[in-house]
Amino acid sequence: MSILKNITNVRGFKCWGAHIGVKSMRRDLAIIFSEKPASAAAVFTQNKVMAEPLKVTKKHIANGKAQAIVVNAGNANACTGKQGLEGAHAMAQTTADELGIEKELVIVASTGLIGEPFPTEDIVNGIRNNIKKISTRSKAGSFAANAILTTDTFAKEGFLEFKIGSKTANMAGIAKGSGMIHPNMATMLAFIVTDVAIDPRLLRKAVKEAVNRSFNMITVDGDTSTNDIVAVLANGMAENKELKTKNDKGYSVFKENLETMMAHLAKLIVSDGEGSSKFVEYNVVHAPSEKAARQVIRAVSGSTLVKTAIFGRDPNWGRIICAAGNAGVPFDYEKTDLYLGNESRLVKVLEKGKPLEFDHNYLKKLLRESHINIKLDLHNGRASSTGWGTDLTTDYVLFNSVYST
Amino acid sequence: MSILKNITNVRGFKCWGAHIGVKSMRRDLAIIFSEKPASAAAVFTQNKVMAEPLKVTKKHIANGKAQAIVVNAGNANACTGKQGLEGAHAMAQTTADELGIEKELVIVASTGLIGEPFPTEDIVNGIRNNIKKISTRSKAGSFAANAILTTDTFAKEGFLEFKIGSKTANMAGIAKGSGMIHPNMATMLAFIVTDVAIDPRLLRKAVKEAVNRSFNMITVDGDTSTNDIVAVLANGMAENKELKTKNDKGYSVFKENLETMMAHLAKLIVSDGEGSSKFVEYNVVHAPSEKAARQVIRAVSGSTLVKTAIFGRDPNWGRIICAAGNAGVPFDYEKTDLYLGNESRLVKVLEKGKPLEFDHNYLKKLLRESHINIKLDLHNGRASSTGWGTDLTTDYVLFNSVYST
Repeated sequence: MSILKNITNVRGFKCWGAHIGVKSMRRDLAIIFSEKPASAAAVFTQNKVMAEPLKVTKKHIANGKAQAIVVNAGNANACTGKQGLEGAHAMAQTTADELGIEKELVIVASTGLIGEPFPTEDIVNGIRNNIKKISTRSKAGSFAANAILTTDTFAKEGFLEFKIGSKTANMAGIAKGSGMIHPNMATMLAFIVTDVAIDPRLLRKAVKEAVNRSFNMITVDGDTSTNDIVAVLANGMAENKELKTKNDKGYSVFKENLETMMAHLAKLIVSDGEGSSKFVEYNVVHAPSEKAARQVIRAVSGSTLVKTAIFGRDPNWGRIICAAGNAGVPFDYEKTDLYLGNESRLVKVLEKGKPLEFDHNYLKKLLRESHINIKLDLHNGRASSTGWGTDLTTDYVLFNSVYST
Repeated sequence: MSILKNITNVRGFKCWGAHIGVKSMRRDLAIIFSEKPASAAAVFTQNKVMAEPLKVTKKHIANGKAQAIVVNAGNANACTGKQGLEGAHAMAQTTADELGIEKELVIVASTGLIGEPFPTEDIVNGIRNNIKKISTRSKAGSFAANAILTTDTFAKEGFLEFKIGSKTANMAGIAKGSGMIHPNMATMLAFIVTDVAIDPRLLRKAVKEAVNRSFNMITVDGDTSTNDIVAVLANGMAENKELKTKNDKGYSVFKENLETMMAHLAKLIVSDGEGSSKFVEYNVVHAPSEKAARQVIRAVSGSTLVKTAIFGRDPNWGRIICAAGNAGVPFDYEKTDLYLGNESRLVKVLEKGKPLEFDHNYLKKLLRESHINIKLDLHNGRASSTGWGTDLTTDYVLFNSVYST
């Protein structure tokens, strides 16, 4: 994973990030453009309250094609009704008009405060005044990455280069996460662009699976925002033979890189969870299915009792087992081994459900580090999964309670 | 609801609560006995890791009959394997032998630390030494209520008298909740006895429905313990004509009182949530179904963002709407009205999804009280539901992180 290259290093993509004044001090408008129409796929929030721009994007992307992405920060355009929906359409229309493409090729997204009237005029003018600046200069990529942030403390970017057959392909991504001081803005956005040639239906399948193994495996505070979207554009300019089926040579390489990119961005989002003091990686191995493994991870990483124990550096295996038992999947603690520690040293604290003797002080020392690992071996199958989460701290509660509407 | 009478005022029931030394200072063994075998029904934890005594009870109660309840506090007998299972059987056997009844008529439950070896000998001796003390003296009921507590700060009791036809019937209940300082002990136990005559199958149906409207509608920290059980015994000594079907005269009165009793105990459990500073009542009205209303309440009352906002006295409607959107049921915020306040004064902050002007300072003053009310009107049907929860405080995190295994 390189952080020296970005979107501007992927063939055919230009971008920009501008300050248009919706937010007071930071860049707040990102535009990404592909020379050629691209295969496109997206995954949207599961929240029944969907932000207005996502309703527009969902329709636009239904045919698997897109050529531009426009995103504003500072106003979520959620719970804004008709006025907001019209604003989202205006964002797409203006972007399309200025770029000389069809409106249906524009992906729109927003992040920021929920329920504020949408400043359509400011944003439409902002697009008009800045869209000419899109370029392939490296700083343009960095500006775009910064322009989608809200309370994030750093921009989240990644770049990968890989071979598909004899062709060199590129992939870049940007994301924003959940600055938890202002959780009304805790939207997760991720935009990934690549020059791989791939059929839209196959891309859609790849995106869905990769999201399940990355963005869907992170937990910060459990609520899914109204604005979450992960979108991928693949414009084919690497000139590989178009990937059409799962069995096509090169598809597994593409998918592996897509998963790597998404997991990279997802982990950056967790790392930037304000109000958390620890980054926790969860592994569940020997599960009956990947889905079951994922559910166990979500139950454990989402448990407030587990999260407070991690904050307290407490090797409290009872809470982990209890949370796993609440995952809604078959779970036999009498088969289960549990390991706690960090990336380099894991201590087995439970073997087939029985507590083992271990050096409490040594383990507490391991748990003092900022990156923690928790591994459950279910001894009940061949599937596995990995996920990431945070602890629950007094700071989290303070930040989220003193923030006032 | 009377708190002056208790189990000992229900015809045919005797009880006792003893100190047998599993816990250092408090009573830790409760025994309840009915002169006559009773119709019996129970609802058990949904956690896949079920404590050993519940496995025994589940078998014993399968035929719908029981005559005694024996409960120890201080050791959960969970994650204890074969040794624990044998201990639970020994508890039932000893109780049966001493009372001269069949072992299969004994309900067994435990609460306390998970994963500690079960002190079978101490408990068996404790039962033998104390079972003769069961009586109908009022203090015996109070002792039983106290003997099932762990970190609870007060005993949870209730008593109801009502008419079934020309007969006067009685019902009494005791419960323990989630002292959140030691969440490995955060078991929810409730035992209700009545002298109503009712067929076991009908009782089972009534118990299940009443639990769904009471104990299943409270949220403290989301994890379901390994030891949760709600059990009801009905010994028929009120001599009403046995209730056999839903349409029998008297059944609706019985069910209403059962729900009242369970809601009363459930609310006491929430009130005693240590580390919380507020008691919150949620109402969802005009929902498409009661189940949907319940799911919305669970999603909102379980949201850490909503709970921290309540701690901060923050009328943050965006978090409530966002959490409701995550409930997994159809939800249209553009139809929804939202009210915040307390029992006596509710302020409408959202009408058909649109924020209303309201006096922020006045509302913050209302939210400063210890009992808060939140009401969502979905304008989308005729069903409704009520639930209860707490806020999420810095104290909660501190208590749960400094407690060390």
